[in-house]
Amino acid sequence: MSTIAVSYAAARTLTVGPADTAPPGPGEVEIEPAYVGICGTDLHIFHGDMDARVKTPAVLGHEMSGRILRVGPGVEGWQPGEPVTVMPLRWDGTCPACRRGHQHVCQNLDFIGIDAPGAMQQRWVVPAGTLVPLPSGLPLDEAALVEPTAVAVHDVARAQVAAGERVVVVGGGPVGILIALVARSAGAEVRVVELSASRRRMAGELGLAAWDPAQDDIPALVSDWTEGAGADVAFEVSGAAAGVTTAVDVLAVRGRLCQVAIHPAPREVNLHRFFWREITLVGARLYDRGDFERAVALVAGGTVPAKALISSVVPLAEAATAFEALEAGGDVMKTLLDCSDAATGGAR
Amino acid sequence: MSTIAVSYAAARTLTVGPADTAPPGPGEVEIEPAYVGICGTDLHIFHGDMDARVKTPAVLGHEMSGRILRVGPGVEGWQPGEPVTVMPLRWDGTCPACRRGHQHVCQNLDFIGIDAPGAMQQRWVVPAGTLVPLPSGLPLDEAALVEPTAVAVHDVARAQVAAGERVVVVGGGPVGILIALVARSAGAEVRVVELSASRRRMAGELGLAAWDPAQDDIPALVSDWTEGAGADVAFEVSGAAAGVTTAVDVLAVRGRLCQVAIHPAPREVNLHRFFWREITLVGARLYDRGDFERAVALVAGGTVPAKALISSVVPLAEAATAFEALEAGGDVMKTLLDCSDAATGGAR
Repeated sequence: MSTIAVSYAAARTLTVGPADTAPPGPGEVEIEPAYVGICGTDLHIFHGDMDARVKTPAVLGHEMSGRILRVGPGVEGWQPGEPVTVMPLRWDGTCPACRRGHQHVCQNLDFIGIDAPGAMQQRWVVPAGTLVPLPSGLPLDEAALVEPTAVAVHDVARAQVAAGERVVVVGGGPVGILIALVARSAGAEVRVVELSASRRRMAGELGLAAWDPAQDDIPALVSDWTEGAGADVAFEVSGAAAGVTTAVDVLAVRGRLCQVAIHPAPREVNLHRFFWREITLVGARLYDRGDFERAVALVAGGTVPAKALISSVVPLAEAATAFEALEAGGDVMKTLLDCSDAATGGAR
Repeated sequence: MSTIAVSYAAARTLTVGPADTAPPGPGEVEIEPAYVGICGTDLHIFHGDMDARVKTPAVLGHEMSGRILRVGPGVEGWQPGEPVTVMPLRWDGTCPACRRGHQHVCQNLDFIGIDAPGAMQQRWVVPAGTLVPLPSGLPLDEAALVEPTAVAVHDVARAQVAAGERVVVVGGGPVGILIALVARSAGAEVRVVELSASRRRMAGELGLAAWDPAQDDIPALVSDWTEGAGADVAFEVSGAAAGVTTAVDVLAVRGRLCQVAIHPAPREVNLHRFFWREITLVGARLYDRGDFERAVALVAGGTVPAKALISSVVPLAEAATAFEALEAGGDVMKTLLDCSDAATGGAR
């Protein structure tokens, strides 16, 4: 039986080829991926925006679920058949950030799925240390949402969201919605700011009130909502210049802005307001193992209703079509690739 | 005997007129100011940049020392002759910020010396609650440095500077130098970044190493200094766009940037680096009573060598000349106005 992998070859070009089926080496585990989510970062790579970093051909994919197929020499505690997800980070352990305990932002971090082959294939070898166990009762399609949920868990922790606080999430894509859900589960009241009507509707279906920054005066709405105080916390998840302005403008005295989105260019920031209101901005990137384990619990327990966030499931071999559809935008939240044999039958 | 006050009348125009000698009302105290420092904010007002806020004629001045002359009805615990400084804040106690305990950043704060008459006069009436006692042995010229030192104490506390940390202060004017001194007293290693050669020399005389951003590659110097880690804390005290960039570029993973300077326009900020290194930006404004009391101790104990920071002492009646000299820049750190009778003899 041959197995397939989807590789990024050049801007807007994904190719289907054979997956690597070499046996796992010492300390490694071979996984059979079940589902792989397409992340905004994967789209950036597909656009060609990260060609300086990505060595082609590059197998993408880091939001995944699957089962262990084989364990390499010296690997203990894992058995074939066990359901797992992967925390796709490899740190060097020796840089100043690692020595201070911040391994997840290692100064020489390898992100598996960008800097090393990812999960968009039917056989995937990873270091055993990256495995995170999944509960046997958790459907594997839902489990593919654990990785972005871990991002949200990390962000909410970085912002130190507390029960009773009022939180504005600027940007209602998958990560923004997950942040809103995780913040709500921490006892916060949440509002989402999102341009897309369909995404506002999806937020509403999850019980999240959403405002339209093209129509509504967001700072005025927040002022009314908070009796003139402003929001305790804002999350900037839009990646847009206007989103930064909104996030700063809604905050209370001593409010916290958590910077989640990637801004490829410097943004104009109203530093006077940071001074005047003693606002704090906190950068947040990735996650640690504790965040991942908490994310598994939130998805498995239904606090994060993963099924409701999955817009479509596409066969792995049709990844290029799925990327193109996402690039076109529209009425979509999370797209999963189905790596199972049946779904990719046409490519065998 | 007549007493004088210096008032801002219009851009670049200070006038000398009679001071208000009405007796202090209930809860008020009349002070005889001894020395008043000229602050950057006073210069902004002098330039006309704050005409939208300042009601003319406006007696400026909020960095001061003096002695109590008279106490108003109901004031207890203060006696004529006692040396004092003033924490020049009046909050409403009812706004959302005050109700959360952040009175010093009250949403309707009156700053005495901007929104109410300041200390550049020979008689000054203030609420008794603003008084801060001075040790009898502290020379009053040095005590005029307590207020900017309280700013520095507040900033260093907001940045949570700890012993052994490496700190970069971008901007070596009076507040920058005071921050450097206070951070050093907290056990930090400090470097100052300052364009002016004379200010770098003054920093050096205080034992503070200073770098020239026009000549030196500051991020490279910080990288060498910190074995590739970057600085734990940066203070942005320059108010310049380039200063923001430098402060962001020198920081370590999980570094903290304390925003001290007033930036009248939005600045381009590399938010990607905030994300990538999980950097925190903390706005810091003014001080609370604890900061003021700590500042008194630092000046009185010599940790802040106030005398060394005083470039010149000018008679109150010659304030206009002193403002013009400061506006012209040059080889100056802190200018004090001497409010004593003798020094303003020519104007009586």
